[in-house]
Amino acid sequence: MLVVQKYGGTSVRDVERIQNVARRAIEYKGRGMDVIVVVSAMSGETDKLLGLAHEIAKFPDEREVDVLISTGEQVTSALLAITLKEMGHKAKSLLADQIRIISDSSFGTARIASIEDAKILNELNEGNIIIVPGFQGVDGEGNITTLGRGGSDTTAVALAAALKADLCEIYTDVDGVYTTDPNICEKARRLDKISYEEMLEMASLGAKVLQIRSVELAQKFNVPILVKSSLIEGNGTLVCKEDIMMEKVVISGITYNKNEAKITINKVPDKPGIASKIFSALSGANIVVDMIVQNVSHENYNDITFTVVKADGKKAFKITEEIGSAIGAKVAMDEDMAKVSIVGLGMRSHSGVASKMFTVLANEGINIELISTSEIKISCVIESKYGELAVRALHKNFGLDAEDIKEES
Amino acid sequence: MLVVQKYGGTSVRDVERIQNVARRAIEYKGRGMDVIVVVSAMSGETDKLLGLAHEIAKFPDEREVDVLISTGEQVTSALLAITLKEMGHKAKSLLADQIRIISDSSFGTARIASIEDAKILNELNEGNIIIVPGFQGVDGEGNITTLGRGGSDTTAVALAAALKADLCEIYTDVDGVYTTDPNICEKARRLDKISYEEMLEMASLGAKVLQIRSVELAQKFNVPILVKSSLIEGNGTLVCKEDIMMEKVVISGITYNKNEAKITINKVPDKPGIASKIFSALSGANIVVDMIVQNVSHENYNDITFTVVKADGKKAFKITEEIGSAIGAKVAMDEDMAKVSIVGLGMRSHSGVASKMFTVLANEGINIELISTSEIKISCVIESKYGELAVRALHKNFGLDAEDIKEES
Repeated sequence: MLVVQKYGGTSVRDVERIQNVARRAIEYKGRGMDVIVVVSAMSGETDKLLGLAHEIAKFPDEREVDVLISTGEQVTSALLAITLKEMGHKAKSLLADQIRIISDSSFGTARIASIEDAKILNELNEGNIIIVPGFQGVDGEGNITTLGRGGSDTTAVALAAALKADLCEIYTDVDGVYTTDPNICEKARRLDKISYEEMLEMASLGAKVLQIRSVELAQKFNVPILVKSSLIEGNGTLVCKEDIMMEKVVISGITYNKNEAKITINKVPDKPGIASKIFSALSGANIVVDMIVQNVSHENYNDITFTVVKADGKKAFKITEEIGSAIGAKVAMDEDMAKVSIVGLGMRSHSGVASKMFTVLANEGINIELISTSEIKISCVIESKYGELAVRALHKNFGLDAEDIKEES
Repeated sequence: MLVVQKYGGTSVRDVERIQNVARRAIEYKGRGMDVIVVVSAMSGETDKLLGLAHEIAKFPDEREVDVLISTGEQVTSALLAITLKEMGHKAKSLLADQIRIISDSSFGTARIASIEDAKILNELNEGNIIIVPGFQGVDGEGNITTLGRGGSDTTAVALAAALKADLCEIYTDVDGVYTTDPNICEKARRLDKISYEEMLEMASLGAKVLQIRSVELAQKFNVPILVKSSLIEGNGTLVCKEDIMMEKVVISGITYNKNEAKITINKVPDKPGIASKIFSALSGANIVVDMIVQNVSHENYNDITFTVVKADGKKAFKITEEIGSAIGAKVAMDEDMAKVSIVGLGMRSHSGVASKMFTVLANEGINIELISTSEIKISCVIESKYGELAVRALHKNFGLDAEDIKEES
């Protein structure tokens, strides 16, 4: 049995925590498993290195930034290998170029193209616990690349996929995936299981437990991911293929994004190319658009509404207004919006989920400004000040509160 | 014309100093030269990393220590490349595995076996200033190795040799090689030139400007080394092949080692194998013996005297006494000794240098306890308290004092 374990920055932030990581790897090994450990940089290190780069340049050279920040994970890898050997176990750190984690050449946001399994299987067969620095790759020409923030998750899942590992464990500073943010709703509950699809919707909406790309990769290669805390004992949350058990639950979680700005363009002539023009201009200005909703309002006219993060609001408004005025449309913005979403595989086979959501919000006197739905998600944009209230009401009414549900054994 | 420049830790200790290094590289490039810059870790970084390793283990795994500490030079390399690009110049960092600086597998003390020149020449031809992290290599199996303390000097000289560079500049925190330690003798004078042989004798005796191995390598491949300060302007000291100019000077420098312990074994039976027995035992205890002098004292008996660093004195005395008592010899130790040496190619063709040295010391009332000579060096062991006085007297009498000598133009 082969397990890949990944530890985030807070789980390796000092020697004591690195020793805890080593003890857990040894324990697994003692149970007869082969173990690969993927580590992040010690917490704060990547920011410290980036700070130096930005002391020098506003836009430091991307190739060299990757040479710089990849050292963070390399340091942790070496320290963990030293710890394991000091504890009397065979161990070896293997860097991206040593196991050939080949990526494209998009410095800072590289994507893994392939992983050679020969070297690492060899070392495992010799009884070594293998330590791999997360977050880094090497391109076809031998340049160091990094996979972007949170890339260590992707390294772990990619290794698990390439080596056909039985399980990929992601150790972090929370003890699993929750039905919603426990800071907003004290009755938030840890999920025992969640499907890849639901996790993707949860992650992209703000439950920042796993990097989205790592979940996509896990889904593609059917790698089960167990999210656990490195600090406290617990069962964690298993992210895996949808199974029958899951079908019982209609809604898995509720996510919440504050700080959204909503921009509406009224009376857009119903001609091809107008929407394209607006969103091309926004994209050209590096503004990420979140929701887009279009309604036919009057004959030959559309209303288009979209949301962006509040920080981009004024810039987006200006761009949209320039284009809007040229075609005689009226542009308005509201900067104090929040988005509340319910996510769940169950809604595919249960009717009435959307109407229930709207009723719950209405009962709290919350007006819905915008609605957007996908197969397993319904999102409502509401006034920011009602955000937390909406989360708690939905959490309770969809039966997610801690006391309402018996934990699966 | 190709120049290799090497900068030590204090010369790259912060962003400001890295910017100075970049400016100098650009200046050379502007004069039409190809430039390779070899950098050390920012001062303190290597010790910080080693500190972490020693927090974990008394004897941390050597392979992994090299993975750990090689990151220090990698960080500086990336920062310098970022700085050069920010200043508008083409630049690229190339790590040991990228240019194939192949070493043996002696982790922590590896020796360079070969350097491939194709990649680096290619990058130079494209107009890049090349930055190479000093101190590191990669063995035949792709493991990271380091070359030992001061190994960045060796990296620079090895690159200069492999690429047939015209000059190898070593930038450090002193402005050249001095006739003796300026802290002891205020009339110490910077040398404009010194031969490889003299530099080797000076370096091993305590003038710690260049790593010995880098000088040996430079001598082997006839690479001229210019030692300069990165902080103040000056001509520095050229370390090169002996030339006619040098013959004019009899003595190039005076070196001085405090903290020596002298151990004497009297009445050693003149039989083969006794000396071997003593020095094997000392070597087995990891004690480095410095000078060894043997005299015939009485018929069939020898006196053997040797010196070790003071810290090893008591241990060496104990080992020697055990062996001595078994053969009826008497062992004595004096822990407060100093060694003063004069170094110079000129003494090969000038008679009377030794007798002059002894006379100078005698005139100061300094008793010589031990004498040892090589082709270009004479060393005397004296009481520690007379050390500084001896250095100043010899410096003056061999005509090395600053006002006595006209600088070569």
